[in-house]
Amino acid sequence: MSHPVIPAERYAERLARALERTAAAGIDALLVGVGPDLRYLTGYTAMPLERLTLLLLVPGEAPTAIVPRLERSAAEAGLRGGVAIVAWEETDDPYAIVAGRLRPVIAAGNRRLAVSDRLWASHLLRLQAAVGDGLAFEAASPLLRPLRMIKDPDEIALLRLAAEAADRVIVAIAAGPLVGRTEADVAREVRDRLIAEGHDEAGFSIVAAGPNAASPHHEPSDRVIEAGEPIVLDIGGSLGGYGSDISRTIWVTGGDPRRGPDETFKRIFDLVRDAQQEATASARAGVAAERIDAVARGMIAAGGFGDRFIHRLGHGIGLESHEDPYLVAGDATPIEPGMAFSIEPGIYLEGRYGVRIEDIVVATAAGPLALNQAPRELLVVDG
Amino acid sequence: MSHPVIPAERYAERLARALERTAAAGIDALLVGVGPDLRYLTGYTAMPLERLTLLLLVPGEAPTAIVPRLERSAAEAGLRGGVAIVAWEETDDPYAIVAGRLRPVIAAGNRRLAVSDRLWASHLLRLQAAVGDGLAFEAASPLLRPLRMIKDPDEIALLRLAAEAADRVIVAIAAGPLVGRTEADVAREVRDRLIAEGHDEAGFSIVAAGPNAASPHHEPSDRVIEAGEPIVLDIGGSLGGYGSDISRTIWVTGGDPRRGPDETFKRIFDLVRDAQQEATASARAGVAAERIDAVARGMIAAGGFGDRFIHRLGHGIGLESHEDPYLVAGDATPIEPGMAFSIEPGIYLEGRYGVRIEDIVVATAAGPLALNQAPRELLVVDG
Repeated sequence: MSHPVIPAERYAERLARALERTAAAGIDALLVGVGPDLRYLTGYTAMPLERLTLLLLVPGEAPTAIVPRLERSAAEAGLRGGVAIVAWEETDDPYAIVAGRLRPVIAAGNRRLAVSDRLWASHLLRLQAAVGDGLAFEAASPLLRPLRMIKDPDEIALLRLAAEAADRVIVAIAAGPLVGRTEADVAREVRDRLIAEGHDEAGFSIVAAGPNAASPHHEPSDRVIEAGEPIVLDIGGSLGGYGSDISRTIWVTGGDPRRGPDETFKRIFDLVRDAQQEATASARAGVAAERIDAVARGMIAAGGFGDRFIHRLGHGIGLESHEDPYLVAGDATPIEPGMAFSIEPGIYLEGRYGVRIEDIVVATAAGPLALNQAPRELLVVDG
Repeated sequence: MSHPVIPAERYAERLARALERTAAAGIDALLVGVGPDLRYLTGYTAMPLERLTLLLLVPGEAPTAIVPRLERSAAEAGLRGGVAIVAWEETDDPYAIVAGRLRPVIAAGNRRLAVSDRLWASHLLRLQAAVGDGLAFEAASPLLRPLRMIKDPDEIALLRLAAEAADRVIVAIAAGPLVGRTEADVAREVRDRLIAEGHDEAGFSIVAAGPNAASPHHEPSDRVIEAGEPIVLDIGGSLGGYGSDISRTIWVTGGDPRRGPDETFKRIFDLVRDAQQEATASARAGVAAERIDAVARGMIAAGGFGDRFIHRLGHGIGLESHEDPYLVAGDATPIEPGMAFSIEPGIYLEGRYGVRIEDIVVATAAGPLALNQAPRELLVVDG
């Protein structure tokens, strides 16, 4: 399946902006290991390995990647935007090579280095040892999060394609059959359908029926789905590197109208749906991320279930399934056009059942835009 | 597909041994994040996330895991061997919670903490900041590698099942059809077959034909496989958490006997095959890991292709696809019964082609045992 490809010039711009921000922050160098930051800055996707791959961004110097000789041709093909490559041999010490390049930079600088969030501790500890004492290492996220949080039109196009694919999977799964199958079996179907719909990866597939629906991160089990219970479906993965993530709660009757939802369930479903709708409407540019959480939380508390909404309202999404901003008390990031995040309130009644409804929403100058469009009303199905 | 399951008592033993080693090393606490170390010690497999999950092993105290409230039920189900759970709420600072528990331990101790190798830098930097200055953080691998390197019979049984599954996939792929298909298409078939053979994950699938075979980590491309060229297949993933990894090099003629291998190819193939065989035979208990590399390297150098064997001979395998010991100059680890590693010499003639042959080998008291048994002779096939 084809999808938009980020052009090489975009990577050159991102690298230039990261270098500007590094210099402006008074940081001597930004060290980016394999992971989403590297992919964002250069387009290069690689497996994180024990062999060090590290992009060095030093203000005033050309971007340079230190890569294992074995990965050289992959790095040459993968690193876009203008990155010089230095390959190290199997018996070299790559940490010493990095330290050797950084020594003059640090000597003339502020003795501050930033490292990408997902670098492994084993690499960081060896860098800390090689570069020497008294040096301040800090997280790269304050430098990179303002860039990565604001998605450009190509990134939004990818998020939209991922959301549309996930919508089709949710609708197909809700159409059944469900009753009599295990959660794990339905979860497998979800993963197969996500891949068939063009996902590179079917990252997660929560299928939580009956009392299991009261556990937000339930692992699909061998429990057989029964008539007369709800199912929380929370599924997603990535398409062209960008995440999908949608939750819907349905009710299966097994074809028996007497096995429909009870009054409590209808009440909590409506409360979650209304909270989801109002929180989405509140996600306008200028509003603090935590404020959107407060809108949903306030409504659910007013409905009498405040202590049953036991997780944050949402998380940013992009090259990572969870990234900045987080819609949670304490994250005061003002929403800006181009930010993409989940809005996913839930109510969980332990031992009984639960409800969650989730969309990926993009903030635009014209207001919030839900990328997911699968029906949000309570689907009462035969299953 | 069912496979051996590590019993809970085994995890209790592993935790006890890790605690003993931590105390003996004079380290105040061992901090284990999500990843293979956590899985090894407790059986708990979780996705690494921005929300901190951390197992605290403090000598003299019960093992305790700090987990996000959302993951509490997954952690309760997943953490075996006797681990107490402390859940943190969405608005708590988990680093402060860890620091609070460690403060009295450090005050009475040596001010040394060890962290698991795969912990993210973002977590490590926040732990370093929360626990305070002047504290030495070091890698956990010196504590855990002696445990993880020696596989117990259940682990070897899993490695064997993974190897046998990978053998069947290699044999099926070599049977063709191959000529006229793209490398990427064959790589997809490899992945599908690994999953169909019971793998949890089809981690990698190198299909490198003709000149691409000269690049050891070639990414399967849209290049169409032609008659009259070799294909390096290097495939693997994990089964029950344990890795498979096998390489074979075949030659496809397209049914035309005039398009068979040339003399140079036969020469380098025989050299690689002999080096692989002799290196395997040398992998006896007591031999240094680097010595096995030297055996293969010496033979290939004597054959005139020393500078074309551009990577280490092999890597340990278990819960990680690459782990200790490494068969490379500089790793003097003495081989012990229960160690499992790849033996994978190669010769790469840039612009032309390459050869690699790889098995997973387990050291036993009775000598080396190759888990892979797919034919190692040159397969000249119609393709």
